[in-house]
Amino acid sequence: MKNIEIVYTPKLLPLYDLKGKTVVVIDILRATSTMCVAFETGIDKILPVSTPEECSIFKDFDFLTAAERNAEKLPGFDMGNSPFEFLNPLIEGKKIAFTTTNGTKAIKLARQQEAAEIVIGSFLNIDAVERYLIEKNRPVVLLCAGWKDKYNLEDTLFAGALAQRLAGEDEQEDDSCIAGIALYEQHKNELEALVRKSSHARRFQLLHSQTDDVSFCLQMNYTQKVPRLSGEYIIS
Amino acid sequence: MKNIEIVYTPKLLPLYDLKGKTVVVIDILRATSTMCVAFETGIDKILPVSTPEECSIFKDFDFLTAAERNAEKLPGFDMGNSPFEFLNPLIEGKKIAFTTTNGTKAIKLARQQEAAEIVIGSFLNIDAVERYLIEKNRPVVLLCAGWKDKYNLEDTLFAGALAQRLAGEDEQEDDSCIAGIALYEQHKNELEALVRKSSHARRFQLLHSQTDDVSFCLQMNYTQKVPRLSGEYIIS
Repeated sequence: MKNIEIVYTPKLLPLYDLKGKTVVVIDILRATSTMCVAFETGIDKILPVSTPEECSIFKDFDFLTAAERNAEKLPGFDMGNSPFEFLNPLIEGKKIAFTTTNGTKAIKLARQQEAAEIVIGSFLNIDAVERYLIEKNRPVVLLCAGWKDKYNLEDTLFAGALAQRLAGEDEQEDDSCIAGIALYEQHKNELEALVRKSSHARRFQLLHSQTDDVSFCLQMNYTQKVPRLSGEYIIS
Repeated sequence: MKNIEIVYTPKLLPLYDLKGKTVVVIDILRATSTMCVAFETGIDKILPVSTPEECSIFKDFDFLTAAERNAEKLPGFDMGNSPFEFLNPLIEGKKIAFTTTNGTKAIKLARQQEAAEIVIGSFLNIDAVERYLIEKNRPVVLLCAGWKDKYNLEDTLFAGALAQRLAGEDEQEDDSCIAGIALYEQHKNELEALVRKSSHARRFQLLHSQTDDVSFCLQMNYTQKVPRLSGEYIIS
């Protein structure tokens, strides 16, 4: 596949034309990883929403609510943004309204710019996403959610990993794509070590979380689901 | 040195606080490389201006004018943006009004955000810039001019090279800096091959230029000058 671009942060997305393209939204720590877990557990659908206030409203309409800001679960919501919270079989069949610092914002931006399709990517579903993109055969934009509009390592590593699989032997024309593949190539045998150096992973360490979300989110192929946007909802 | 950040494109600069920091503006192909050549040749000073129209005005005030857009010299100006044009000894002692697609814009943005100091970096003066930054001992922001606000390879490679020299054995905290150093490390023995793959180098090939600007701009230490902003002018 020749036409692959990596967008390192949502701030750069307005520079790209998304018409006719499939956008893969990537927020490895943790929104898109957590969404993959939620669908594997068996939820019905996810409604990505912009603000915690908006998210709260959906408590009245038979939704579970999940809200995270600055890597922490917000008080008053059913869940935060840790994949471990979405392993609970009691969420099976439920609708979830979901707001996070970076991931849900990236999804909404891609939608505003009229991408042909928006899918949710993470190491947890990398094989399934790869197959899906090859089958659809559209130009692909890999959109890193980043951290508050800044570049981050873990999203770039995943974008590089996926770009490399899709590119095969084709020379890439996009500078971001060439650099993303190079970063992944150099670190593919020590992904976790590099991600633990990232600013976001260090942010988790400061929070003294009881679960090892970093190592969970770097597992390959936990699920074969390919969550994707359909109207306002993410379904699978 | 611990406090080093890389900003991959001017579009991301508003996310950074520049107060008290030295900003190194990087536009390897070709504005900051060409400026280094101009000072080595012996020009007096450079006035970076935003638009070709503004640049034209300075013809009336004993300036030479240099204007480039989309990698091409604009008609009606003394020079474009090729380093070879600034080797001419007739420019010695002259003032030059200069406008380019990416480089002069990046300089002006850094100035608006009140950086403590703004210096011009390229492979052509990498040793001198390294020494200068170590001597000043301020936090450093390496600002890649990019291509029309998008990420590019050649500016990232230089930022990675300089960051690696400044960082030494210190672990870096900035994700962009970690990735920039990794990209440079992986490609330092084949810089030119990678830069020739970049979208900007391919743009030159399409223009059938008579000079090899890419290979010229990748020379190390052509000059010991450190051009830097002083008021509205770049001096050395």
